[in-house]
Amino acid sequence: MKKFVPVLVALCAATAAHSAFAQAKPEADIKYRQAAFIVMARHFGSLGAMAEGKKPYDAKVAAADADVLAAVTALPFTAFGPGTDKGAKTEAKPEVWKDQAKFKQADDAMQVEMAKLIPAAKSGSLDQLKAAFGPTGKTCKGCHDDFKSK
Amino acid sequence: MKKFVPVLVALCAATAAHSAFAQAKPEADIKYRQAAFIVMARHFGSLGAMAEGKKPYDAKVAAADADVLAAVTALPFTAFGPGTDKGAKTEAKPEVWKDQAKFKQADDAMQVEMAKLIPAAKSGSLDQLKAAFGPTGKTCKGCHDDFKSK
Repeated sequence: MKKFVPVLVALCAATAAHSAFAQAKPEADIKYRQAAFIVMARHFGSLGAMAEGKKPYDAKVAAADADVLAAVTALPFTAFGPGTDKGAKTEAKPEVWKDQAKFKQADDAMQVEMAKLIPAAKSGSLDQLKAAFGPTGKTCKGCHDDFKSK
Repeated sequence: MKKFVPVLVALCAATAAHSAFAQAKPEADIKYRQAAFIVMARHFGSLGAMAEGKKPYDAKVAAADADVLAAVTALPFTAFGPGTDKGAKTEAKPEVWKDQAKFKQADDAMQVEMAKLIPAAKSGSLDQLKAAFGPTGKTCKGCHDDFKSK
């Protein structure tokens, strides 16, 4: 028992430290998810501008945009945990927490399309980029319609 | 000449479209660079917490943090262009634009250390992570001291 207690204390301390970090303050989570969305939006927007002929297609730029998207696309969804519906200005509707299964489904739908868009944007083919861009954009819009205030 | 003029017009239009996109509104650039820094800070902070024993070392988390850092580390520095010293709330000091060579040097110094930190964070070795974290953190602090308001 003498040996067991300090181990238990250490384990509890480690768990507490881990939880404290994993559950950042709501304000920090809100700002982090918004930041990740801003980064996503710029690079997704860059691909969209090329897909829609609003700026010249540049295979290198498209590939770089895709690399950023690959790294950040999952990040915002790690920061909608319990209690992060308030604590800083947020456009997330209460539905995010009321209907978590539907929100998860919307996230999954986006990831599925993003997993097609990324290789398309790196393919060097504007046609492939064009084909993959629209369906991904629809999943963004679908989620915004249901879960983001206007 | 008849053929040349439309080509020239098209080229000018394309260049204008490209410039318009490349030079986003100052407000958009300011918010983008801040967002990229927020994403960086969380994942750099996660590595720091592990390096300093504030949360348990997890090789998978460290590798994931490194992947995000690799994708975002250069992004903020694409958005300090001319005219982006104002247009939204910013903590960037006027020195960013007054002494661009020094600012570039500070960015380069960080990228050099980051290029060591990323493989260290993916190595599966806490010792390697610890060794690379401090020098990278110093470059962050050095740049903040000179170029970021408190």
